[in-house]
Amino acid sequence: MEYDTITAISTPMGEGAIAIVRLSGSEAVSIADSIYKGKIKLQDAESHTIHYGKLIEPKTEEAVEEVMVSVMRGPRTFTREDVVEINCHGGIVSVNRVLQLVLNHGARLAEPGEFTKRAFLNGRIDLSQAEAVMDLIRAKTDRAMNVALNQMEGRLSKLVGKLRQTLLETIAHVEVNIDYPEYDAEEMTHALLNEKLGFVKGEVEKILITAQQGKILREGLSTAIIGRPNVGKSSLMNALVHENKAIVTEIAGTTRDVIEEYVNVRGVPLRLVDTAGIRETEDIVERIGVEKSRKVLKESDLILLVINSNEPLSAEDENLFEAVKGLDVIVIVNKTDLKPNIDMNRVKELAGSHPVITTSLLHEEGVDRLEEGIAQLFFQGGIEAQDITYVSNSRHIALLQQTIRHIDEALNGIEMSLPIDMVQIDITRAWEILGEIVGDTVSESLIDQLFSQFCLGK
Amino acid sequence: MEYDTITAISTPMGEGAIAIVRLSGSEAVSIADSIYKGKIKLQDAESHTIHYGKLIEPKTEEAVEEVMVSVMRGPRTFTREDVVEINCHGGIVSVNRVLQLVLNHGARLAEPGEFTKRAFLNGRIDLSQAEAVMDLIRAKTDRAMNVALNQMEGRLSKLVGKLRQTLLETIAHVEVNIDYPEYDAEEMTHALLNEKLGFVKGEVEKILITAQQGKILREGLSTAIIGRPNVGKSSLMNALVHENKAIVTEIAGTTRDVIEEYVNVRGVPLRLVDTAGIRETEDIVERIGVEKSRKVLKESDLILLVINSNEPLSAEDENLFEAVKGLDVIVIVNKTDLKPNIDMNRVKELAGSHPVITTSLLHEEGVDRLEEGIAQLFFQGGIEAQDITYVSNSRHIALLQQTIRHIDEALNGIEMSLPIDMVQIDITRAWEILGEIVGDTVSESLIDQLFSQFCLGK
Repeated sequence: MEYDTITAISTPMGEGAIAIVRLSGSEAVSIADSIYKGKIKLQDAESHTIHYGKLIEPKTEEAVEEVMVSVMRGPRTFTREDVVEINCHGGIVSVNRVLQLVLNHGARLAEPGEFTKRAFLNGRIDLSQAEAVMDLIRAKTDRAMNVALNQMEGRLSKLVGKLRQTLLETIAHVEVNIDYPEYDAEEMTHALLNEKLGFVKGEVEKILITAQQGKILREGLSTAIIGRPNVGKSSLMNALVHENKAIVTEIAGTTRDVIEEYVNVRGVPLRLVDTAGIRETEDIVERIGVEKSRKVLKESDLILLVINSNEPLSAEDENLFEAVKGLDVIVIVNKTDLKPNIDMNRVKELAGSHPVITTSLLHEEGVDRLEEGIAQLFFQGGIEAQDITYVSNSRHIALLQQTIRHIDEALNGIEMSLPIDMVQIDITRAWEILGEIVGDTVSESLIDQLFSQFCLGK
Repeated sequence: MEYDTITAISTPMGEGAIAIVRLSGSEAVSIADSIYKGKIKLQDAESHTIHYGKLIEPKTEEAVEEVMVSVMRGPRTFTREDVVEINCHGGIVSVNRVLQLVLNHGARLAEPGEFTKRAFLNGRIDLSQAEAVMDLIRAKTDRAMNVALNQMEGRLSKLVGKLRQTLLETIAHVEVNIDYPEYDAEEMTHALLNEKLGFVKGEVEKILITAQQGKILREGLSTAIIGRPNVGKSSLMNALVHENKAIVTEIAGTTRDVIEEYVNVRGVPLRLVDTAGIRETEDIVERIGVEKSRKVLKESDLILLVINSNEPLSAEDENLFEAVKGLDVIVIVNKTDLKPNIDMNRVKELAGSHPVITTSLLHEEGVDRLEEGIAQLFFQGGIEAQDITYVSNSRHIALLQQTIRHIDEALNGIEMSLPIDMVQIDITRAWEILGEIVGDTVSESLIDQLFSQFCLGK
């Protein structure tokens, strides 16, 4: 396929040592040549070589920047097209100036994700691999990055490919049966169908088991800290941020209001959407009542409920326990350095199966145990195993669930002895849906939508 | 010289398409080789070539990242040493992981500016060129970037070199005179000294004329918006930001509190140190009195004094005019869409030589005129001329001023017929001081201090 030449700034915006403006397309080298002045013409450069020189405004010959230009010819590139990377001194004005110059000389500004989209459209990677590229960039922990790396290397693609192959064989078998009824093998066909479909269903279920953990790894654990005033919510917040590396992610190009803070607790990324938000939950139960607050709290993946061991349980505390029933909660009994005035038996009774952890947050005492508790809650059963294929993407999870639904329909049909060509419809649909994961059977508008979530320059 | 191998992340932190970890030093290639798995060994790669592959943890053979590695052998590099650049997928975890791997296998974390420092210590650039590298990254406008580019290309260095050469010739001449008094040429020596020193002084003065503008270009114009409540200060702020590209600079690694906002007004960078700060000036005169507020306002390079044309001048307004006397002020008579109730003759009288501009900021009317006024105030007399060498760095300005002082001393000495070897001391001192600009005669601790102001990875 032939596309026009696109360009974008491929490094994060900000003051840094180096910034990159990337070009991809058949005109990439000639556009770069028209604004580059160095020892040789870039068009004469060998592939995968780097060239020092100056960018100039061709009309005035005025020097615009001092640069290193990398020339990489397709198909051995990220997009499979000719790619030129212009490394310039980092800095907002500098890199924008280089971008402007490139735009003025024939390149078009790339849409978000358009470089990766070309890699997909040109067949270098499939859709799930392309999605993994973005997951990799957004990864907040090592584990999340490993999941993305595995997916990028095509582990999910291979598994999906294997399952689709099995379904295809099943479909072929059924078709033979329909087209050549004289070979009466219906009995065997049913048994075989059951076996093959059962196999596919089992494999899909195995992947789906990883979904919750995978999703947490990818998106972080939306975490709320609740409790009455002065029980130590801020101290908890500070202790978590202090003991761990807090990663502040600012959504580029928007206002400073949209800030997400991640705290990496033993590989579990806690997403504190914004500290103000956490502060607001302080009075949430009192303000809006137990019923309504439950709805709000339900949107959190993890609730840290803090109570004060120095005071007897109050009605407010009991309300909080009521509000979080059935959710993922860790109960933190704080201020153990003070005289205990709380009925711990009652606390344990209210907590039920939820972990109860005692802390003296002021002295950073017990934070270790809390972190251990968080890690245990979400990584039971050896999540570390390298050979598991995690599914972490909501789109993939939904498609896998649909696949199971259609296989169940097919299995039902077989049991009810429905005409075999009716059963075949569901099997074919399952095959198509699995194909959407890797992008084999997916609409153009969905592709556009998926890539639009990428960051600029990728 | 031989140094150890240093490494750092050279792209701004954040989620981006590409991030770079850079290595420099004699072990750069072998360290990269120890964690790289690709088609060939990097040690066998030709200089200035790019190689696709994977970074692996050598002990476990586990893949850490998918990367493109650039191999550049000294001396044709930024530092003149062997340089390796590892391009990985942007993203906070990804790039930190690559950095960690490199650190674990023999590289040392670079100090801020250490790459550029090596370029200086290895003689590729002089000190003023090194400083220009940082100015270039921090440039907020095209003009500031041009100044930095010119300086990086060595324009200031050449000029300084020429002046030092003249001083050196003068010193030599004086020495001949001292050592061989039998060639009695004192009369001529005085005339010649006067001429040569006068020439150097004149040239230094010419450069210093550009200093104020240069400094503004480099550091931005510290701007305060003042006025009584409800005269339209916020509207002014919004109009300036809205019509121009606002650049938010976050100082990496610190809290979110330290944010500087730059508005590029026709090439003049207005530095709004922080919007909260501007809001605080609202009541500054009322709060702390005219005398004290003058001191605060004096730290601003530009004051935008807003008054309301719909109301008669109040005592508060008059106080504000009093407080900004002698400073760089533009008076903005706002709300011209409403019925005029202000005594414009009195306003003009109070404004004196300061420009008075009428606006209706609510309708973004008059913003053009204001911007024109700002540009005129700071760029009178054809600043655009390409062939001017700007001096923008406070350190350079101070050194140039010291140079003039010593030349004046020398000229004085000549006039007072002091012994020629006393005069020579001042000339030599002037020569040394000029040398500090390019780093010829500069202490190690000053060098350390200068480079520590750089950003990481440069």
